[in-house]
Amino acid sequence: MGRIGQSYRVSKVTFDGEDGAYTVDTRGDTVTVEEPLELRLGGAALTTTMRTPGNDIELVHGFLHGEGMIDGPGQLTEARYCAGATGPDGQNTYNVIEAELAGGGAPSPDFIRLTTTTSACGVCGSTSIEKIMSKAKNPITPITLDPHLVVSLPEKLRSQQKQFRRTGGIHAAGAFTLDGEAIVVREDIGRHNAADKVIGHLLMNDQLPAENLILVMSSRASFELVQKAVMAGFGALVAVSAASSLAVDLAREAGLALTGFTRPERFNLYAGELKEN
Amino acid sequence: MGRIGQSYRVSKVTFDGEDGAYTVDTRGDTVTVEEPLELRLGGAALTTTMRTPGNDIELVHGFLHGEGMIDGPGQLTEARYCAGATGPDGQNTYNVIEAELAGGGAPSPDFIRLTTTTSACGVCGSTSIEKIMSKAKNPITPITLDPHLVVSLPEKLRSQQKQFRRTGGIHAAGAFTLDGEAIVVREDIGRHNAADKVIGHLLMNDQLPAENLILVMSSRASFELVQKAVMAGFGALVAVSAASSLAVDLAREAGLALTGFTRPERFNLYAGELKEN
Repeated sequence: MGRIGQSYRVSKVTFDGEDGAYTVDTRGDTVTVEEPLELRLGGAALTTTMRTPGNDIELVHGFLHGEGMIDGPGQLTEARYCAGATGPDGQNTYNVIEAELAGGGAPSPDFIRLTTTTSACGVCGSTSIEKIMSKAKNPITPITLDPHLVVSLPEKLRSQQKQFRRTGGIHAAGAFTLDGEAIVVREDIGRHNAADKVIGHLLMNDQLPAENLILVMSSRASFELVQKAVMAGFGALVAVSAASSLAVDLAREAGLALTGFTRPERFNLYAGELKEN
Repeated sequence: MGRIGQSYRVSKVTFDGEDGAYTVDTRGDTVTVEEPLELRLGGAALTTTMRTPGNDIELVHGFLHGEGMIDGPGQLTEARYCAGATGPDGQNTYNVIEAELAGGGAPSPDFIRLTTTTSACGVCGSTSIEKIMSKAKNPITPITLDPHLVVSLPEKLRSQQKQFRRTGGIHAAGAFTLDGEAIVVREDIGRHNAADKVIGHLLMNDQLPAENLILVMSSRASFELVQKAVMAGFGALVAVSAASSLAVDLAREAGLALTGFTRPERFNLYAGELKEN
């Protein structure tokens, strides 16, 4: 368990009587840990994300890949916990990672602002999509989805979620083959972090672009998740919950197959093609 | 519907046969709109959030309040859509808001970095909590929760979610009295935006601090949401899904009652007190 789950004294209130009666059972219960992770690149603080500790080096690689900062396994010459990052108890917090880009240097101020634009032209969905398309180096190889495979994936993901069984409160991401085999599954309180850990793992094992692989998410499909899937070159994104407008728009533009509301007996296909019935 | 929901051609795949047979029904289906909103303060781009359009002025007020930048209704002398923010079609995108603080000036670089720290001391949960506690100007007046009220709130929130009924994919936040009456309910694809819209509404109507009010969320309770509830002075946060460790820690420190997994027949109390059974 350790830093992933933490026990709290929790009162469980259950209404079980017929006349609105309830019982209160107070005991220790496991809660998913949420802690900040600060990423420093070339000595400068780049971003802080609230994440569940674990696989932090993968998280950093995945995050930087999603932003188009690195695209291969050797491009971070260093990525380690900051030795001087101690908390009030004098112990290392393991919440600060220092990374160095091959070739050195810190990120441009332009990068720090990420999605922020300062031009007179307003931000809008289509400019967001253009930005991702210009950063994505690996065109997606479209795959046609087998509906039988699609509906099986959420349960396959769930079966590997160790922490979800303990807390009921953590997201998961997984990379699956077209045979439905899991390559890597990661859990995190933030769905974007779970995706970054999966993509970071693939990158560190030189398995990007993720051609003929499917990214399966326990969550909704937002623009940000489709962005990560597109940057990593996945052929499809299968989400358990809803998709947003901009997620659908980007998936269609990039050639990524996208499903939402994916349940054992049904799903919605928002982008891409199905195998013949 | 307009900018909140958008119709897409979607293939609905349903497995309804006994031998793995399925049907495909392709038709128009409403998807929740996700669009970037850029906030400029004193002429400088401050942040961009992916949100569902609507109640954007409330969103801006709520966001700035949550960050401790404003604490009353008159403190933004201006907050309007940028006139020059046009998209590729020449139309205003309504995705850029220009705001001015009373007294003028742009936010400090310190604010821009928000949660990022550059000190040698590492970020950790306890420093995050200290930061919020030092920013929160209104100590919370603790309320004792009536379990009957708690379990009724998610359904009351849901009954006011117009957009959820259309798309199944949008979060909601609501401010409720201790009698279970809704003061304001807002929907957004991002739970933090839904909370900001509710808090911004209260602020613009001079109803902050939200003493004796309960913030009800359709989502999980993360640190960020507890931060917003604490800054607004709510007495309780009722969440439909799980709470994180840091959310529980901050709620306990601030005196905010916190429930999670709140369903019609049960909930978990993570912080605060219950009325006598």
